[in-house]
Amino acid sequence: MKNLVLLGSTGSIGVSTLEIVAAYPERFRILALTGNYNVDVLAQQVRRFSPWLVAVPDAARAQVLRELVPDRNVEVLSGLQGLRACAALAEADLVVSAITGFAGLEPTLAAIEAGHDVALANKETLVAAGALVTSRARALGVRIYPVDSEHSAIFQALQGQREAQVRRLILTASGGPFYQSSPEEIERATPEAALNHPRWRMGKKVTIDSATMMNKGLEVIEAHWLFNMPEEKIAVQIHPQSVVHSMVEYVDGALIAQMGVPDMKIPIAYALAFPERLALDLPPLDLCTLGSLTFAAPDDRRFPCLSIAREALRQGGTVPAVMNAANEVAVACFLNKTIQFGQIAEVIRATLEQHSPCAVTDLETVIEADRRGRQIARRMAAAKENAQ
Amino acid sequence: MKNLVLLGSTGSIGVSTLEIVAAYPERFRILALTGNYNVDVLAQQVRRFSPWLVAVPDAARAQVLRELVPDRNVEVLSGLQGLRACAALAEADLVVSAITGFAGLEPTLAAIEAGHDVALANKETLVAAGALVTSRARALGVRIYPVDSEHSAIFQALQGQREAQVRRLILTASGGPFYQSSPEEIERATPEAALNHPRWRMGKKVTIDSATMMNKGLEVIEAHWLFNMPEEKIAVQIHPQSVVHSMVEYVDGALIAQMGVPDMKIPIAYALAFPERLALDLPPLDLCTLGSLTFAAPDDRRFPCLSIAREALRQGGTVPAVMNAANEVAVACFLNKTIQFGQIAEVIRATLEQHSPCAVTDLETVIEADRRGRQIARRMAAAKENAQ
Repeated sequence: MKNLVLLGSTGSIGVSTLEIVAAYPERFRILALTGNYNVDVLAQQVRRFSPWLVAVPDAARAQVLRELVPDRNVEVLSGLQGLRACAALAEADLVVSAITGFAGLEPTLAAIEAGHDVALANKETLVAAGALVTSRARALGVRIYPVDSEHSAIFQALQGQREAQVRRLILTASGGPFYQSSPEEIERATPEAALNHPRWRMGKKVTIDSATMMNKGLEVIEAHWLFNMPEEKIAVQIHPQSVVHSMVEYVDGALIAQMGVPDMKIPIAYALAFPERLALDLPPLDLCTLGSLTFAAPDDRRFPCLSIAREALRQGGTVPAVMNAANEVAVACFLNKTIQFGQIAEVIRATLEQHSPCAVTDLETVIEADRRGRQIARRMAAAKENAQ
Repeated sequence: MKNLVLLGSTGSIGVSTLEIVAAYPERFRILALTGNYNVDVLAQQVRRFSPWLVAVPDAARAQVLRELVPDRNVEVLSGLQGLRACAALAEADLVVSAITGFAGLEPTLAAIEAGHDVALANKETLVAAGALVTSRARALGVRIYPVDSEHSAIFQALQGQREAQVRRLILTASGGPFYQSSPEEIERATPEAALNHPRWRMGKKVTIDSATMMNKGLEVIEAHWLFNMPEEKIAVQIHPQSVVHSMVEYVDGALIAQMGVPDMKIPIAYALAFPERLALDLPPLDLCTLGSLTFAAPDDRRFPCLSIAREALRQGGTVPAVMNAANEVAVACFLNKTIQFGQIAEVIRATLEQHSPCAVTDLETVIEADRRGRQIARRMAAAKENAQ
């Protein structure tokens, strides 16, 4: 029986995780859940999985939740304090980190500091604080299992192989909803169009990141930290069918690829049960019916965010954290329709130009870089807005 | 330093093996070579690799070879005795079995009986005597490393995974030169057309087997024995680009595929250096330039040999050995232009109808089944010839 803590249980990854747990009650037990605004869903999850602890963002929501499950013997915590308590729960065997955005960093670090293995769905943890997080994990003997479909694919393709014989990692990208669009169409794309991802059903933030290809940029940085691979050895290929989830190329020219239907349950289950695989009730991938898999190089001109992220990784220090902060702000502004799609990259670039990079020595440096990044990005976004 | 014996050094696999050995002189040493008719090439190989032993089919050729390398301190043997002596050489660490056809069985078994690990390129060893060969290998703690590109791909895709979690193996097939041809064109195809394989440069026998798809049938039987997998869990998919060399589907729906340029050096080197990979001087596989990978179900009507082989595997006992013998005879008749391409399957089917199957208990049973199979097949082929 594996004891799980699930940070971010009401999001897309959280819900899929709980479906797997529900299918394998003899293997997994939920000790703690944390959610954000969706207190009703959280209350249903508490009824279904009977956790010991649950955490919500503030005292008011904690009170609402308590009133929704008066008959349940569950401790309801709130704030960052509550999140940290869940993440560090002594009895946990594995902490699933599925909170979206920079907010996932602190609880993930708390889980690592408590010595818990982490199934990591939160990209920003490694993007903003990769050096810190991986060095702490190494020091404490904590394993980080990737939950992103691409990084899970690479992790799977590395099993039974020697790290020193890897020539490069190849992350695949669907290309997003604007893969075939003209620069003019992309420039003025609406949130509705950008949220209409051709392959994956995901949260809003990651769907927009997928449309700008910043998602792939964040994944390059994440792959760098997860697999200890330099930026120039992490390639990106557009693969619109999203069937080959990523690949590893070895020194002998062999490529090992992991494929599957685009369902996050596959990478989530692999992270939960590693090194075992769980039988999942999914339609099998039928390559014969699919017929054709295509591959193409990404177009930096139409999708500049990927090269912005590569440059941030090369610069290192606080630059990726600031880039990530600027991206979160710009995406929120785009979703609120205060800036245009094409301006997301411009806001990020302008923010990075204003930032004076420094080395990341501790969590405070990262938090401060994130804070400053958001501040500058908001200014940059407001300037765009006023100019319209 | 790994000491190698190379059975079948002048064929396509043999020559590629020696190119790898030449590139890695600090890793591999050739102790023995065996060849067939190509004594001149064998003499050059003796000069280049200085083996202790070399074996040729008969005393006359042995004498010719001795006279070609009078200055070399090499013992030249002949006949099956000579082959066996090379295969069983006490100092060997790995025996590469690259003799084509049923003739490869006895020396491969000799290597296994001597306790040597085997890199197996000879399909017929497992097709004709899979139960015997694998049970002896298990009993003696001998490892059999596949050299076929498909089985090497599966072997690679199984690394770091649990056998019990395999849902099925998927062997890919190029479809051969007649993949797009009409039944009438296939029926009357010439040896020249059949030898013109679209992707792989190989020996004549295997190239014709590839055109009839009997090659894939032999590979299904081989996969059954190598990976201990029932016939119904071994699928075949047509993949004309020959880039995905084969795949393993797991219970969670994930597929692990091995890809690469179609060059036998990749699987040969993997078998030679397992679990390491050797850097090879090959052009990298560029999926973006290739653009598209396609997959389709095989067509049993135009290519009946695949289902003949599946049926033979299900029947078991001496049936696969007889099928293999009939196929070797039929292919030779086709290459000699005494039967038509479409008659290869007919000769095999007619031979199997004449055969009374029995269990395989020892090598003699297999040899006798092979002899009887050839005898019947020659009669069946002659009948076709006379009927023309």
